[in-house]
Amino acid sequence: MTSRDGYQWTPKTGLVQGVPSIGVISPCSNIKDSNRTWDVIVVGAGYCGLTAARDAAIAGLNVLLIEARDRIGGRSWSSNIDGYPFEMGGTWVHWGQPHVWREISRYQMRNELESSFDFSRGVNHFQLRTGEEEESRIMSHAEEDALLISGLEKLVNVDGEMGRKIMPYAHDTFHNPDARKYDTMSVRDRINEIAATLAPHERATLEAFVLLCSCGTLETTSFLEFLHWWALCGYTYRGCLDLLITHKFKGGQSSFAIKFFQEALGTGRLSYAFNSPIKSVVDEDGKVTLTTRDGRSFGGRRLICTVPLNVLNTISFHPALDEKRIAAMNTGHVNQCV
Amino acid sequence: MTSRDGYQWTPKTGLVQGVPSIGVISPCSNIKDSNRTWDVIVVGAGYCGLTAARDAAIAGLNVLLIEARDRIGGRSWSSNIDGYPFEMGGTWVHWGQPHVWREISRYQMRNELESSFDFSRGVNHFQLRTGEEEESRIMSHAEEDALLISGLEKLVNVDGEMGRKIMPYAHDTFHNPDARKYDTMSVRDRINEIAATLAPHERATLEAFVLLCSCGTLETTSFLEFLHWWALCGYTYRGCLDLLITHKFKGGQSSFAIKFFQEALGTGRLSYAFNSPIKSVVDEDGKVTLTTRDGRSFGGRRLICTVPLNVLNTISFHPALDEKRIAAMNTGHVNQCV
Repeated sequence: MTSRDGYQWTPKTGLVQGVPSIGVISPCSNIKDSNRTWDVIVVGAGYCGLTAARDAAIAGLNVLLIEARDRIGGRSWSSNIDGYPFEMGGTWVHWGQPHVWREISRYQMRNELESSFDFSRGVNHFQLRTGEEEESRIMSHAEEDALLISGLEKLVNVDGEMGRKIMPYAHDTFHNPDARKYDTMSVRDRINEIAATLAPHERATLEAFVLLCSCGTLETTSFLEFLHWWALCGYTYRGCLDLLITHKFKGGQSSFAIKFFQEALGTGRLSYAFNSPIKSVVDEDGKVTLTTRDGRSFGGRRLICTVPLNVLNTISFHPALDEKRIAAMNTGHVNQCV
Repeated sequence: MTSRDGYQWTPKTGLVQGVPSIGVISPCSNIKDSNRTWDVIVVGAGYCGLTAARDAAIAGLNVLLIEARDRIGGRSWSSNIDGYPFEMGGTWVHWGQPHVWREISRYQMRNELESSFDFSRGVNHFQLRTGEEEESRIMSHAEEDALLISGLEKLVNVDGEMGRKIMPYAHDTFHNPDARKYDTMSVRDRINEIAATLAPHERATLEAFVLLCSCGTLETTSFLEFLHWWALCGYTYRGCLDLLITHKFKGGQSSFAIKFFQEALGTGRLSYAFNSPIKSVVDEDGKVTLTTRDGRSFGGRRLICTVPLNVLNTISFHPALDEKRIAAMNTGHVNQCV
């Protein structure tokens, strides 16, 4: 099946919208009776919505899954062109990501991973361009690693223990209440603090790494959140490489997401409608009514909304969402990736 | 409640069998009709059996959980005497243990952990006694760590990459087929191989660490399994400390295990019987019949047996278990802990 998301280009066809993906669901709906009341309506078929829909269906609830796109997976999905899996969004997984790994184990996909690092073809060096010199600096990956380890350790070493003392539990950010003081600090603030200790190339490489991770700017990237990443990665640079950018699915992210959908469908309790962007959610008299932009209405006893922050403000909620959530959706994601 | 497992001693009472534990289930059975046929019978109320019973009950199946002891948790359980949590078996958890951590997240217990390491009271040094010298060697923890890092890295460095090349996927042991050659190698074999590179104290400390981990002997400890541990711990000594012996539940393991039991019970589909060691399992004509040592019989459509290897040979199975399983249960666990 071809998703209308994404683009492909060949000399023959030129630029064409849409790429093949096993994440496209066909037919795009299996709803037989749209007047029924579902136990749960789940909005969004990314991993969050897929997990919610699956778990609810397994627990015996009748579920309606509504998705604006023609496919599952949200920002994490893949195409496959001529046998090569192209990742269009989220790519990497690791057993140090416990909630993801549990699902990989569930679907017996632990041996369906491969490494991203194959320098046998293509560029096999690290090139640093600071714009301050005419010539860029070319270095080996070992030199690159050494530079990054040095820079990153200076960045995170707020406690003499590489962040272990300030954030001893990676999943309990404020276990040490002293961590709160970094909640309002940007990476720019922190780099300014340690600027005197950073050599020019070290600083440039460090900043590039942070920007690559956050897809924001140094001013909009939270230093606390960076410490959080660092803690989740075992407080080492090698851990960051391992957890963040090493292991991917041979068959792409969509080969993983489809398992959630298939399991939910297998319960016989999943109704779904793709190509269905929603307009409003009204929670009244113990019943939730969802209306799509094209005017269809669906009723549920509960609703789980997994719509990303950046499109949440296209939906009308009654009663209104709380003030903090409205403020967040008006700000949108810091992440600048397109 | 007091479990008949374990012992406590006070000057007043002397040695008394049994300790208090929230893992003791009272009443010891909730079976109303023992003549019914359950969808699943689960034998054993350790974490494995608890998880199976819970997931089956959530999925809508009627479950019978049968356990020989008076409590849940199997080898991982805890007492609490005068407010101090005593661990009687399994103790430590970490977010790098994905399947365990997923359950910790499920029960919102991520902030109910504390660190084992508190050297502010009691012994604060490492003492090495090799028996070869009259005086034992006392060293700081930093010296101990340096010695262990050096020794362990020599042990696992079979590939010039600290085991990363031979076992690149910690949960897919034989991803690199070359790992098979270590499947028949004991830690003793491997230490003999590298003996010339090990200083006497280094070797003694390394051997002590391996023995502590395996609770076996160097001859009965699999080198492949040690590499597996090492890979699971992120291929570093610090990772081993973090994942194996640092973080424990403030309320003890039983505060965790009880959540599984309570969730299963909450479905209304869990029947259970404690104090019920079993005698036989007969799988005939599409029905499984389980008989307890005291002569009660229970029928099920399926049976999940989580009985540990060391007591599996006390149960009669018809049809018989396969030959390899029989060979394994006759060997028993290498682990020598009592």
